[in-house]
Amino acid sequence: MKKTKIAILGFGTVGQGICDILLQKKEQLKKQYNFDFEVVAVSDFNNGNVYNPNGLDISQMLEEAKAKKKFTKDIVKWDNITLIKKCNADVLCELTYTDLKTGGPAIDHCKTALKSGINVVTSNKGPAALQYPEMNEIADVNNVKFLIEGTVCAGTPVINLTDGPLAGCEISKIRGILNGTTNYMLSEMEKGMGYDEVLKIAQDLGYAEADPTGDVEGHDARGKVTILANVVMGASLKISDVPCQGITKITFDDIQKAKDNNARWKLIGSVEKKDGKIIGSVAPEMIDLSHPLAGVMGATNALTFSTDLLGDVTIVGPGAGRIETGFSILTDILKIHNSSLVC
Amino acid sequence: MKKTKIAILGFGTVGQGICDILLQKKEQLKKQYNFDFEVVAVSDFNNGNVYNPNGLDISQMLEEAKAKKKFTKDIVKWDNITLIKKCNADVLCELTYTDLKTGGPAIDHCKTALKSGINVVTSNKGPAALQYPEMNEIADVNNVKFLIEGTVCAGTPVINLTDGPLAGCEISKIRGILNGTTNYMLSEMEKGMGYDEVLKIAQDLGYAEADPTGDVEGHDARGKVTILANVVMGASLKISDVPCQGITKITFDDIQKAKDNNARWKLIGSVEKKDGKIIGSVAPEMIDLSHPLAGVMGATNALTFSTDLLGDVTIVGPGAGRIETGFSILTDILKIHNSSLVC
Repeated sequence: MKKTKIAILGFGTVGQGICDILLQKKEQLKKQYNFDFEVVAVSDFNNGNVYNPNGLDISQMLEEAKAKKKFTKDIVKWDNITLIKKCNADVLCELTYTDLKTGGPAIDHCKTALKSGINVVTSNKGPAALQYPEMNEIADVNNVKFLIEGTVCAGTPVINLTDGPLAGCEISKIRGILNGTTNYMLSEMEKGMGYDEVLKIAQDLGYAEADPTGDVEGHDARGKVTILANVVMGASLKISDVPCQGITKITFDDIQKAKDNNARWKLIGSVEKKDGKIIGSVAPEMIDLSHPLAGVMGATNALTFSTDLLGDVTIVGPGAGRIETGFSILTDILKIHNSSLVC
Repeated sequence: MKKTKIAILGFGTVGQGICDILLQKKEQLKKQYNFDFEVVAVSDFNNGNVYNPNGLDISQMLEEAKAKKKFTKDIVKWDNITLIKKCNADVLCELTYTDLKTGGPAIDHCKTALKSGINVVTSNKGPAALQYPEMNEIADVNNVKFLIEGTVCAGTPVINLTDGPLAGCEISKIRGILNGTTNYMLSEMEKGMGYDEVLKIAQDLGYAEADPTGDVEGHDARGKVTILANVVMGASLKISDVPCQGITKITFDDIQKAKDNNARWKLIGSVEKKDGKIIGSVAPEMIDLSHPLAGVMGATNALTFSTDLLGDVTIVGPGAGRIETGFSILTDILKIHNSSLVC
């Protein structure tokens, strides 16, 4: 059985999550999917860069990272770009932090890998939201894949759902709850608290950042809407093409008014075909309680796809989490593994 | 481009649905999935049996069937078994009526096809609920597939979801709304009507049969639970292993009591691993309004999969319908087409 050689950039929550899963599921993956692997390279800003063509000791690396220690084995002095070029991996997992303004170094990481004939799997929204069409073209030219299930709703099947079991359906509209933090806050506000009070709790729980702007102003959801428009509906939208309104102006009175109308506020991201054009938007909406999206509470995400053959199909699942996002990386690695069996 | 040769047994709602889709999507399927087809054989109790190795005229056949006329072209005097053996198809679509007691002639149809090296795609719950493990084994031995997405929740991705984008997750529990008729009735009863009144409306609308036993006593849901246990969780349950209670005893008072407790009655089919054994059941349950299944109203179906890596993932979509079930046949035909590209 040929082993898939994996390189990982970013050994934070998701990087450690996928390594935990790979270790835990090693035997099952061999048995069920004829899939075996070795992690040959890891790069991390805090822990250091390591490389071993025969496979790194990821158990030890996980222990070191959890103890906030630097890696001690197989250290190399290469920068990330050199590591990508020299590691001879089959798949690069780009798991560094998301920068929706510039894309950060992740864009160079992805391009370097694709141009070197290395498949890229990423949960980093930067490259996908800012440059999906270009990335996809570079992947095509180099006969590799650029897979991004983890950029929307963690490992909950979204892109691989439309690309797989929904193939053959035409999708005319996508609407959903794409940001767990704001959905949690709106759920809590129904219990009678005001915006500021709820934000404080969300921050204490680690759902919202110290600077919550990216979530509460809808920027995170806007990045995901851009990705869905470009990946699922074949558009070429820029993030700035998507009008965006967050939840900061929702008052306790608004919440009460919705209740009185058998409805509930949700921050809705949507993509729609209108007059032949694809249009995205992010805005709070009052959703009737009978709609499947209305029952999606807390940090959960959900998306409704409007299709020609099935009508509406809704998927509900986790929108974040170490193992949940780690799974998005596994599912895309398995997709590459399966397609590599194709002549 | 090699054309996939399709044979269709049963030219009723689903048989006509898949033919409508195939005609409507012919060019798109060629372009997007490199898939082309011809329907070489059709058998129908009312319309007759027809065969043409170069492809039947399905437009004309659809017109004839809609006008309740017999087929006029390419008629053969073969019975169904002879038709299956002589048609030289790549895929047989078994779309005759479901018989959950004996399986009816569908079991022989499926076995004959599989043994003749023909893939089988079916929305008929009989063979799948009564003999899935055997059918799958015959398919394996003959190097073909026995695919049954349409037996549960029409074309809403269920089996192809667990088999595809959820691959790598271990599923420990499946719970959901598997019967649209009873879900419609329970939804209507919330509006203040009693069981008998709502049943009458469901019958007038064509949701419930003149003899509604199969739906209201939970037998249809029990067949689907058996299929999910055997296909998704690898059990070998018989239908009679699944305890089953319908909705006939739910009173207006029960509905009111649920409302008072922020809950709602649903007929829930479930499959669960308990102490290493796989257990299925069908029974009405009071579901808290905050649960994703509570918001699923009318004739819609929904299933929640409890997984090790993603926690709960719920899919909501149509549970019946001409085109919706027709799509389940297309999705499985495309699955066979894609896997035939594998070395």
